[in-house]
Amino acid sequence: MPITVAVDCMGGDHGLKVTVPAVIEFLRHDTDCAAILVGREEDLHAAIAKAKGEFGPRLSVQPATEIVEMDEAVATALRTKKNSSMRVAIDMVKDGRAAAAVSAGNTGALMAISRFVLKTLDGIDRPAICSILPSQSGGTYVLDLGANVDCSPEHLLQFAVMGSSLASVLEHSDTPTVGLLNIGEEESKGNELVKRAADLLKVSGLNFYGNVEGNDIFKGTAKVVVCDGFVGNVTLKATEGLAQMIATALRESFSRNLLTKLAALAAMPILTEFKERFDHRRYNGACLLGLRGIVVKSHGSADVFSFRCALERAAEAARQGLIDKIDANMKAIPLAPMICD
Amino acid sequence: MPITVAVDCMGGDHGLKVTVPAVIEFLRHDTDCAAILVGREEDLHAAIAKAKGEFGPRLSVQPATEIVEMDEAVATALRTKKNSSMRVAIDMVKDGRAAAAVSAGNTGALMAISRFVLKTLDGIDRPAICSILPSQSGGTYVLDLGANVDCSPEHLLQFAVMGSSLASVLEHSDTPTVGLLNIGEEESKGNELVKRAADLLKVSGLNFYGNVEGNDIFKGTAKVVVCDGFVGNVTLKATEGLAQMIATALRESFSRNLLTKLAALAAMPILTEFKERFDHRRYNGACLLGLRGIVVKSHGSADVFSFRCALERAAEAARQGLIDKIDANMKAIPLAPMICD
Repeated sequence: MPITVAVDCMGGDHGLKVTVPAVIEFLRHDTDCAAILVGREEDLHAAIAKAKGEFGPRLSVQPATEIVEMDEAVATALRTKKNSSMRVAIDMVKDGRAAAAVSAGNTGALMAISRFVLKTLDGIDRPAICSILPSQSGGTYVLDLGANVDCSPEHLLQFAVMGSSLASVLEHSDTPTVGLLNIGEEESKGNELVKRAADLLKVSGLNFYGNVEGNDIFKGTAKVVVCDGFVGNVTLKATEGLAQMIATALRESFSRNLLTKLAALAAMPILTEFKERFDHRRYNGACLLGLRGIVVKSHGSADVFSFRCALERAAEAARQGLIDKIDANMKAIPLAPMICD
Repeated sequence: MPITVAVDCMGGDHGLKVTVPAVIEFLRHDTDCAAILVGREEDLHAAIAKAKGEFGPRLSVQPATEIVEMDEAVATALRTKKNSSMRVAIDMVKDGRAAAAVSAGNTGALMAISRFVLKTLDGIDRPAICSILPSQSGGTYVLDLGANVDCSPEHLLQFAVMGSSLASVLEHSDTPTVGLLNIGEEESKGNELVKRAADLLKVSGLNFYGNVEGNDIFKGTAKVVVCDGFVGNVTLKATEGLAQMIATALRESFSRNLLTKLAALAAMPILTEFKERFDHRRYNGACLLGLRGIVVKSHGSADVFSFRCALERAAEAARQGLIDKIDANMKAIPLAPMICD
């Protein structure tokens, strides 16, 4: 049985132009996988023909007439667009016809529809968004990145279980370390939320490292970093903004005049290697965790390589049994501290 | 009358070795300023002699026998070390013998002692820490960066007034724009804290831009960015961590072998210019705002250039009448929304 990924081919800034070629490359590379392309039937067949994608039963098309717009209100997308490519892709996960869904569409709509259709796992109050950020030791799993702006300590505990499960299956590590994002390492530091979350994490049975600070994300001090969605989203966007400013400035510096352009030529292999090492496209594919099914969100602006990375992450999570892992890890948490609180 | 800065010369990782030469350079450059060096008398005189600092009455020494250690408990520093260099420097601001105090010592202790000795301005519940972060349009004033982890909407409003006042005096701009750090631009976004803070900011009389996101700090979308101290501290440290990771990786890439070292040589002028442009040392000197006196906190690991930047920032804030500006701006806020809340 191949691992089947349902792909919302109409979502994202570039739609079919990116999603279809990405699926073709994905299927060429991941030979144990199949893909169901969801979207406007005619357009999809044309795009497949153009990309010369012939994979027999591994590649199929599921029609969906509507599209959730990138700036569409979540409520509209949820209530009125029951035949959108996004909704149909998630429905296929629900029906067991696909092991995972991938979309580059509207994040809010994707989260709302996923939650409505798939429901959350036992013990999970709210799904969270988890991304991998580059670090000196390979990558750090950070969640929540914006799905939940007002969190309780129990929510942070649930995020920790979900993030730990994801890191565990994707990194083939039994007990990844979990850090709690705070403003200092000492136990006395932080706001009420993190102090109470630390108490829960200590007796959770997870490999709790303790408090970590913002810079620890990039040091790789803990494999998983847990925070509320407000802090996570601001942090993610601030670091993206800084990276962009540095990249722009570096480009400007090297293209100033003939001399600097010659220097850039000399430094090209190094700059290219450097760029590849921190290529944000490799990290594309945020996981919506806590649902009864795998849903992966690609950046809206993803290119073909980037979208393929998201497809591969979804397939790997399915291959390694992410949902069962989260479910088992949730059941393994001692109940006492949650009742006491 | 010169602008007199009281300098805690014993604080920071390097103490006198950094602080005294930095003061000498500062006095050489800022000829309208004077400095009172606070610390162990003999050591200070020796360090001044070594640095050949002769400025007549512009340079004096104020003895202080104790030192607040970098890892010392705030309560101990506050209650038992009344003759510490940090405390004595702040006392001099209180007594009107200095217009500002600068320290590279323990942040928590500096904040607690400053608050205890100087008290807060009318209408200010809690002082905040404000730093300037580099941006595409020169620099963004961000606060609070860690003094207040649990904030009310009124606190954020007060931070906005303080940050706006600081940017106003240091940038010679009448009405700097103020952004509220959030997870989206739309008014519907965010947690309860920021939604209620936005309501206050709208009628504050400040030049309120609206919500900004993490990346806007580096874009320079608004001149001042306001957030609670938990979010601010995590964001600051995360971006510092990312910058450090990139710098390390760039250095590694260029020093790998003979070929890459030659390329580095060719690219050296560009890399140097690039480094200078984002030199974090230029941004050293965080302001403790909301107090009845100017207190500037230098990074503990500051070098001579870096510490001098903090001294210059303190002097400029005093020169431009920062405290009066904050006081006037606080008084100009309409009271209604604060009472309603």
